[in-house]
Amino acid sequence: MDERFMNLASSSSIKELIEKANHTAVDLMMEADPYWVDIGLAREMIPGMKDGMLLHAGPPIQWERMSGPLRGAIIGASIYEGWAANPTEAEKLATSDQITFAPNHHHDAVGPMAGIISPNMPVFVIHDRKYGNNVYSNLNEGLGKVLRYGAYSDEVLQRLRWMRDVLAPTLKLTIQSVKTQKVGIALKPIISQALAMGDECHNRHTAATSLLLRDLTPYMIEAGIEKKDFISCFNFINQNDFTFLNLAMANGKAMCLAGQDVKYSTIVTVLARNGTDAGMWVSGLGKKWFTAPANVPKGVWFPGFSEEDANPDIGDSAITETAGYGGFAMAAAPAIVSWVSGSTAFAVQNTKKMYEITETKHRYFLIPLLDSQGTPTGIDIRKVVRFGILPTINTGIAHKLPGIGQIGAGIVAFPMEQFKKALKSYAELYAL
Amino acid sequence: MDERFMNLASSSSIKELIEKANHTAVDLMMEADPYWVDIGLAREMIPGMKDGMLLHAGPPIQWERMSGPLRGAIIGASIYEGWAANPTEAEKLATSDQITFAPNHHHDAVGPMAGIISPNMPVFVIHDRKYGNNVYSNLNEGLGKVLRYGAYSDEVLQRLRWMRDVLAPTLKLTIQSVKTQKVGIALKPIISQALAMGDECHNRHTAATSLLLRDLTPYMIEAGIEKKDFISCFNFINQNDFTFLNLAMANGKAMCLAGQDVKYSTIVTVLARNGTDAGMWVSGLGKKWFTAPANVPKGVWFPGFSEEDANPDIGDSAITETAGYGGFAMAAAPAIVSWVSGSTAFAVQNTKKMYEITETKHRYFLIPLLDSQGTPTGIDIRKVVRFGILPTINTGIAHKLPGIGQIGAGIVAFPMEQFKKALKSYAELYAL
Repeated sequence: MDERFMNLASSSSIKELIEKANHTAVDLMMEADPYWVDIGLAREMIPGMKDGMLLHAGPPIQWERMSGPLRGAIIGASIYEGWAANPTEAEKLATSDQITFAPNHHHDAVGPMAGIISPNMPVFVIHDRKYGNNVYSNLNEGLGKVLRYGAYSDEVLQRLRWMRDVLAPTLKLTIQSVKTQKVGIALKPIISQALAMGDECHNRHTAATSLLLRDLTPYMIEAGIEKKDFISCFNFINQNDFTFLNLAMANGKAMCLAGQDVKYSTIVTVLARNGTDAGMWVSGLGKKWFTAPANVPKGVWFPGFSEEDANPDIGDSAITETAGYGGFAMAAAPAIVSWVSGSTAFAVQNTKKMYEITETKHRYFLIPLLDSQGTPTGIDIRKVVRFGILPTINTGIAHKLPGIGQIGAGIVAFPMEQFKKALKSYAELYAL
Repeated sequence: MDERFMNLASSSSIKELIEKANHTAVDLMMEADPYWVDIGLAREMIPGMKDGMLLHAGPPIQWERMSGPLRGAIIGASIYEGWAANPTEAEKLATSDQITFAPNHHHDAVGPMAGIISPNMPVFVIHDRKYGNNVYSNLNEGLGKVLRYGAYSDEVLQRLRWMRDVLAPTLKLTIQSVKTQKVGIALKPIISQALAMGDECHNRHTAATSLLLRDLTPYMIEAGIEKKDFISCFNFINQNDFTFLNLAMANGKAMCLAGQDVKYSTIVTVLARNGTDAGMWVSGLGKKWFTAPANVPKGVWFPGFSEEDANPDIGDSAITETAGYGGFAMAAAPAIVSWVSGSTAFAVQNTKKMYEITETKHRYFLIPLLDSQGTPTGIDIRKVVRFGILPTINTGIAHKLPGIGQIGAGIVAFPMEQFKKALKSYAELYAL
């Protein structure tokens, strides 16, 4: 640990300042109240989204250092946008100055795995009714051969076009119908209920997707959606329990954004990875990235694949753990171990370990299995470094080559190096 | 324990016969494959259902010995059927020979709490694809002031008429639409999934009802149901997580019926109570009732009520425990303890205790929290008596007076006396 920071622990007045700041930051996070309120194309919805711009998961990165799945997703998005006719053209374009890359988090957006959001992709708009922030996420494509895992075959692109042309307009009519009756779809109550129904809301969303469908269906009927579109859209969501993932991520982003920029706070507000680097933000350190090489997840492999094929960790989805659920709530989801590996005891143990590096127990997200204790919420970089316990998250695993897709799911820790860097920077900023 | 039966345990050849029979009975139960295939009025669907007949929960009983909630439900059903204009007329009728009472179980039917099924009430038809049996259950009315808890106000009767005139015809169109594509709605997979989603499928059906709605919705659209009916029926189901209870019970009845009448078997195939007596059937003892006075549940009371107001245990719903879920699967549903009282540790403990009095671990119903062990399945009357451990179930609690309704939910054990009577009868029948 940085020596100046160690001194800090012995100075009671500064310690108090930090404790108070952390309490405030996590309180802001827990009290955020995110609602899904709209859907539309990224170029119309996301502030600062420009033509030729591609948003991606994790900290900033340029083409040269990008991993296979991120490159694959960029190739796919470039063809989808009509910027390139084939992978060769897309790769050429990616190294030209016609394309700008930016992290989703720079635009208050999140995306799972590669996390690519291009101007003509539909995005959910989530509004935090408590603090007024808007955040964004793309829509979930399902599992296997999908853009976010680096696949870009015709099947993948065809699905993306259908999502733009049929799914998003159908959901637009639906959310408009919702808004004739209420403010939008409240996300916190869905997550809260889903945690009592075996989801941890990062790698398991069976309950949350069910609850979402229960909530939406009457409004889909009210909206007078055409039978054919109703059935194709309902079935698409119904057949993909990961539908809620992107909303769970946007919910997490809204919560963490609310806790951002609290002076003196050592609470993590972003955890994300781009397939090469892992990185994070800390509430009291502004929107500055602290990065280190991303780890390779350990997990359960789809038939024919192994750890050798795995790309290092990728995606903005660790925002769920940053907000106090996902891997941190594994004890709520004993069935998850068949998907990410491990035993029930491991799931419970992981949640218990995360209490040691977090500020508090969540006020609204409870774990029935732990006699309704709140989930571990608000990662404190001081505790991570002091106790040597790394945030451990549930994640999907992408093939390291572009064009292939998902090959498994598992568990991964963030690298200690980024936490040490952040502590050092903290000591400098606050002149300790 | 009956002495003759004790001798039995020492005779290895008879012991082997029993073991084999129990293995067979429980295997038959587990391999049953119940599908919801139809819905219609009881008089058209249930064999032996006659005009003037009322089916009820639990073992046989006549008006004089009936408890308040059962009487209340009979009063309500008589007014609903147009047999009586008011409670006084209904009570008079109930003591006349114009009305016949019979247990649901005598007609392969089940109903929660009072369990009243009258000729013009709609019932689900469940078909066991493996063994060809048909079984029946009524439809769930929701919680609070409802017929099955003994209430019979205008609000209660109005709801029953709407269920007959709107809900049942809508579900009929839906199930007909389902049957253009598949055999029906398979119930075992829903229960199996729901156990991984925090339901125990007796007093908690939040997940199962969600999964049912996900399954039904596209067929409701295909069926071309009118917008107004779609919304009212969808919302009725959506607002009542107990919708699936009656299907879970019918599923249990189909499973237990499959295991009935296996010579030498000491496995319980019916557990039920009528609000006065608890009773049961045993596989190797035919359809003979063994009864004892029903216990009063301990639980969580609705505001303004206490144990003093509680009626003794009532309903056919213990068929879920008989089939290996419900209270026996409490460890799958830690959130249930806020509804029926207790702690997570108690829920786990109850499941573990039930392993001691059951034949096996269920092949298809697994508990993720117990590292995916099967639920305790197949209550063995020998083990209940030998170990002094009583089947413990989750249940709703009715007010002891007619006309009031539900006042709580809790936990109750079946009386030891009925198990001892059954063992005695077993020793006699098999001339041990």
